[in-house]
Amino acid sequence: MIKVGIVGSTGYTGAELVRLLTRHPHVELVGLTSRSYVGEHYWRVYPHLKNYTDLQCEELDLPRLVDRADVLFTALPHGHSMDVAREVLSRGKKLVDLGADFRFRDQAVYESWYRVPHTAAELLPRAVYGLPEINREALRGADLVANPGCYPTASILGLAPLLAKGLIDPGEIVIDAKSGVSGAGRGFSLKTHFAETNENFQAYNVGVHRHTPEIEEQLGRLAGRDLTVAFTPHLVPMVRGILATIYTRPAVLPDRDELYELYADYYREEPFVRVLPPGMLPQTKAVAGTNHCDLAVVPDPRTGRVIVLSAIDNLMKGASGQAVQNLNLIFGLDETTGLVFPGLYP
Amino acid sequence: MIKVGIVGSTGYTGAELVRLLTRHPHVELVGLTSRSYVGEHYWRVYPHLKNYTDLQCEELDLPRLVDRADVLFTALPHGHSMDVAREVLSRGKKLVDLGADFRFRDQAVYESWYRVPHTAAELLPRAVYGLPEINREALRGADLVANPGCYPTASILGLAPLLAKGLIDPGEIVIDAKSGVSGAGRGFSLKTHFAETNENFQAYNVGVHRHTPEIEEQLGRLAGRDLTVAFTPHLVPMVRGILATIYTRPAVLPDRDELYELYADYYREEPFVRVLPPGMLPQTKAVAGTNHCDLAVVPDPRTGRVIVLSAIDNLMKGASGQAVQNLNLIFGLDETTGLVFPGLYP
Amino acid sequence: MIKVGIVGSTGYTGAELVRLLTRHPHVELVGLTSRSYVGEHYWRVYPHLKNYTDLQCEELDLPRLVDRADVLFTALPHGHSMDVAREVLSRGKKLVDLGADFRFRDQAVYESWYRVPHTAAELLPRAVYGLPEINREALRGADLVANPGCYPTASILGLAPLLAKGLIDPGEIVIDAKSGVSGAGRGFSLKTHFAETNENFQAYNVGVHRHTPEIEEQLGRLAGRDLTVAFTPHLVPMVRGILATIYTRPAVLPDRDELYELYADYYREEPFVRVLPPGMLPQTKAVAGTNHCDLAVVPDPRTGRVIVLSAIDNLMKGASGQAVQNLNLIFGLDETTGLVFPGLYP
Amino acid sequence: MIKVGIVGSTGYTGAELVRLLTRHPHVELVGLTSRSYVGEHYWRVYPHLKNYTDLQCEELDLPRLVDRADVLFTALPHGHSMDVAREVLSRGKKLVDLGADFRFRDQAVYESWYRVPHTAAELLPRAVYGLPEINREALRGADLVANPGCYPTASILGLAPLLAKGLIDPGEIVIDAKSGVSGAGRGFSLKTHFAETNENFQAYNVGVHRHTPEIEEQLGRLAGRDLTVAFTPHLVPMVRGILATIYTRPAVLPDRDELYELYADYYREEPFVRVLPPGMLPQTKAVAGTNHCDLAVVPDPRTGRVIVLSAIDNLMKGASGQAVQNLNLIFGLDETTGLVFPGLYP
Repeated sequence: MIKVGIVGSTGYTGAELVRLLTRHPHVELVGLTSRSYVGEHYWRVYPHLKNYTDLQCEELDLPRLVDRADVLFTALPHGHSMDVAREVLSRGKKLVDLGADFRFRDQAVYESWYRVPHTAAELLPRAVYGLPEINREALRGADLVANPGCYPTASILGLAPLLAKGLIDPGEIVIDAKSGVSGAGRGFSLKTHFAETNENFQAYNVGVHRHTPEIEEQLGRLAGRDLTVAFTPHLVPMVRGILATIYTRPAVLPDRDELYELYADYYREEPFVRVLPPGMLPQTKAVAGTNHCDLAVVPDPRTGRVIVLSAIDNLMKGASGQAVQNLNLIFGLDETTGLVFPGLYP
Repeated sequence: MIKVGIVGSTGYTGAELVRLLTRHPHVELVGLTSRSYVGEHYWRVYPHLKNYTDLQCEELDLPRLVDRADVLFTALPHGHSMDVAREVLSRGKKLVDLGADFRFRDQAVYESWYRVPHTAAELLPRAVYGLPEINREALRGADLVANPGCYPTASILGLAPLLAKGLIDPGEIVIDAKSGVSGAGRGFSLKTHFAETNENFQAYNVGVHRHTPEIEEQLGRLAGRDLTVAFTPHLVPMVRGILATIYTRPAVLPDRDELYELYADYYREEPFVRVLPPGMLPQTKAVAGTNHCDLAVVPDPRTGRVIVLSAIDNLMKGASGQAVQNLNLIFGLDETTGLVFPGLYP
Repeated sequence: MIKVGIVGSTGYTGAELVRLLTRHPHVELVGLTSRSYVGEHYWRVYPHLKNYTDLQCEELDLPRLVDRADVLFTALPHGHSMDVAREVLSRGKKLVDLGADFRFRDQAVYESWYRVPHTAAELLPRAVYGLPEINREALRGADLVANPGCYPTASILGLAPLLAKGLIDPGEIVIDAKSGVSGAGRGFSLKTHFAETNENFQAYNVGVHRHTPEIEEQLGRLAGRDLTVAFTPHLVPMVRGILATIYTRPAVLPDRDELYELYADYYREEPFVRVLPPGMLPQTKAVAGTNHCDLAVVPDPRTGRVIVLSAIDNLMKGASGQAVQNLNLIFGLDETTGLVFPGLYP
Repeated sequence: MIKVGIVGSTGYTGAELVRLLTRHPHVELVGLTSRSYVGEHYWRVYPHLKNYTDLQCEELDLPRLVDRADVLFTALPHGHSMDVAREVLSRGKKLVDLGADFRFRDQAVYESWYRVPHTAAELLPRAVYGLPEINREALRGADLVANPGCYPTASILGLAPLLAKGLIDPGEIVIDAKSGVSGAGRGFSLKTHFAETNENFQAYNVGVHRHTPEIEEQLGRLAGRDLTVAFTPHLVPMVRGILATIYTRPAVLPDRDELYELYADYYREEPFVRVLPPGMLPQTKAVAGTNHCDLAVVPDPRTGRVIVLSAIDNLMKGASGQAVQNLNLIFGLDETTGLVFPGLYP
């Protein structure tokens, strides 16, 4: 059994890790840390987990936790995983960070967007960006995985085939993304307040969302050149799900069957990416609770554009499901272990 | 492998059966019938199931389906399972009916509430009411199971301990129940129309809902006498979940710890009933997608009442999850096979 | 023009007062106080009001505000209106308190349920309970109005005809009430957090909600004797609306037409109460944004009960709309001024 | 009093017209036609209107209705207003069509997108596109008004200042639009079925939505040249509201204050367009129930784009509110009559 500890376990990505890991056949949960609920049974904090774990929330005592665990997940605000990472790696254990601290090659990009100094920059070259569909080999046996952001996961999976094949102008990408409210976490704000958000729809952080440079770095790797993207996130009055609508400009416009084949080929071996045939469009409900990414590609001959639609569950493929997929790769398990189940529909 | 066919598979309870059975380790799905989608791949009708089943919807050809299957599930409007049942049983196969046709001992009660003649009344004595928590032994090896209604499941589990112990006046029960909209199925009506139902709350079928006599028959068995209940269903602007708030009048009012112990004892061996300790109340989200029933019991010393709160997922413990639990009992499997997983929260 | 100041204007009941009073033909808003937004334009706090008011939020300077105003509305947490009231009345101005501080005749009841000492108990006899349908004459010209709670408004209007006519047993009342989330205000908690509340339904404060004694005092007045009620509030995943489902036991059960006539007669002159004919049931959406209360009365001959359904908008007839109705009565205006408009449906 | 008849009054835009016109000071409703509810009191079809109208739904008898009315509103599926229009105009009365039949100058464009022949093409030159902010003078006294579509209203108001000033490349416009479910009307489909739509988000009609050519024709008029736009509509799990996120490419990128001033100047005299200052973004809730359009303009210096956000209530400024605004213009009333009230927030 792989012994797993979760640092910052009582946010939504932490709770989703617990949900997944309590039924993972090769994992034993050995510690759940929390600042707010120390001493409380985890199932009192998250009542759906009653009968599934008897662990109590504990204060973070990193050395003791690292001793007990083979791998830690950190589900912390940015800036808080750096020191944890150094300690974990120095003791020969492994870390999957669900935050942003190790997602960038370039320390300066991180620091300018996240407004904190990076105190473990020496680890950046060692970190592997944890999107298995584009980085699988590097993830096998990795000891420091930067789990991608939710918007980047949907966006990169939506664009990878077009960019990898060099079919579109990398400077002409518009990503209009919409997320359920759980993406904002369990912390309180007017944006997560029911009466403000229900029966409401709005954009936020227009032009300045921190997932922008992450998307650009990974798309740039696929395109083989630097690029910028126009990226606008929106808040949908639902709990789970992201849909990214992506506008691209190809040099030559393929027809819909060619586009479908291109995507179907590119993702043929991928267990979690489902390319929908022409006539079907992704919907977030079809991936709710699962690690799947559903994709459709539509040509728009009137404007000469290709429009890609990409749907994930922000807490699953966009966070904790992907983190478990990475855990499986790190430890040489079948990549789908503990993740093969359909969503909750309706 | 147990070979399973589903008659009427493209409603919501049918889809939920498919979701559960595609990952049940001892089941093979051999046929999915539909009136509306004959020839269509099932995953095109329910896109969350892409990659999980390649079956196509087929027209109902009962003899052929019975030949292929060990057991059928019928997820049909009332009145349509009677003839199916006769055919299935006559060929030595088994049936779990998710409809109302076999839920009543007394044919006259059925006919007066459902307004159709019962054409297979000779089978009524053979039917077992499929609520394992009160009927487990009869379900082992049964060949005709009447799967309970959603409201009755929540109501009966909420009241069983009090009635079985004779603590309350059986003539003084009020059940105020609230259901998510999926309980109304995939058929169209103003009550299931998004713009009418979202941001709305209302009662329906006040005093005349067809689950009333089902609740009364089963509670009467537990109480050892005939009884009536005031039962009012309501429509909640959410997809899944039932919460029943039940008002009872005890002869002597226990305190909250006594009530908790009574319920905890009664359900101690039950894998799917979770009695919450004093201070916690059920919420439908904690059981969403699962076969659990969450219960709390609260004394109200000011009025001398005991108030019970009972939460289930109407499509799971209220329908298809319970049907799979019954399948397991029928075939002598561990009752929880394919059903042990926590819900989707948030 | 009546000069109005609002103390605690940036909660939801405050915002609803501003919405109503900016288009009230005989009112001029002269001051909006706030603790959190001092100096901010009100429309930046509530963007729907851009173009409707240019007032800025101000710190509370009570003497100066009272000088400017003819009447104050207080929309404050309980315990905070007592001293305001004394100051306002001592200067010959009027007060409508949307909180609980003046809703009880008996200081001891208030103090035992609200857990604070009452520091202006000498004013309690002067306070008029602001439910015009049962208290109209006392409200004309009143100088201290205790605006009712939302649940009490729905409950009392639902029960008044039965109690006033002495038709039911006052000791056998069960009120099962369901409220939208805006009833919890703009303050943050897990219960108002979108991801916890959407797709969720739950009871709260079972047997101990503070509106219970308020309901009991007013129903007791109507019944002419002391009584207790079983009252259970629930949280509905919607923004606005309350539906109360009320179970009563009559000595003799009227039929549905008699019940309808009873209610239609009782409320015939009431501008805001709409008694629905047999066959129609209240829904919260039909009263959203309005000062209406929609009622239906249903006999349940099987159990000998009468079931009443009562729907209001908790921020309107349940709070600010009723407060404006009271304002109109206080100042001798037509009671419906500024309040005659249908709701937002769908 | 202006005598108004509504043809097709029991859809959502019809109901919204009734809501508005029952409190319009210069309008008398003289006839409400319906196919489904003939003989029924209108308030039984729409219960929020109880006490506001006693009219009963009537079958369409066009000559008799035209005799009674000064103006008709048609709220019909496309293809059904052509013959009505001919009859109305031939009798010297006026028509506001809320459908698409008269929105296009070019009959061929209409016929190729709507797939029906136009049987009243001779009236097309007489029809005035009813967006007062760009067409006010032509609307005064018009006798045939083509009320704009919901998406076109949000899109055109969002782009008019940039196009009118020639600041952007008209060939590089992307409109990503999101609508509440009421936009699909009261007709049934899986897309309007609560259990399918709640907790779900999806695009639909990608590249082929019929509002596309309408947007293009009007933007082309503003730009002074033909153009195409990439337009993608999405379905939001809420009842009311549209947010359009519009991506443009300017020749020279203004800064945010310049953009704000440009928009504020352009719309300075407009009663219903509210340009939000830098730092605020539109949200659909702030315009719910009102005739307002809220706009923000944001430069994205990293990509050289200007992003416009435009929010309306699809049933109000996107349909019936705008139709009443047009009625006021047609009859020489103050354009805002019956439309000046803030929205319902929260």
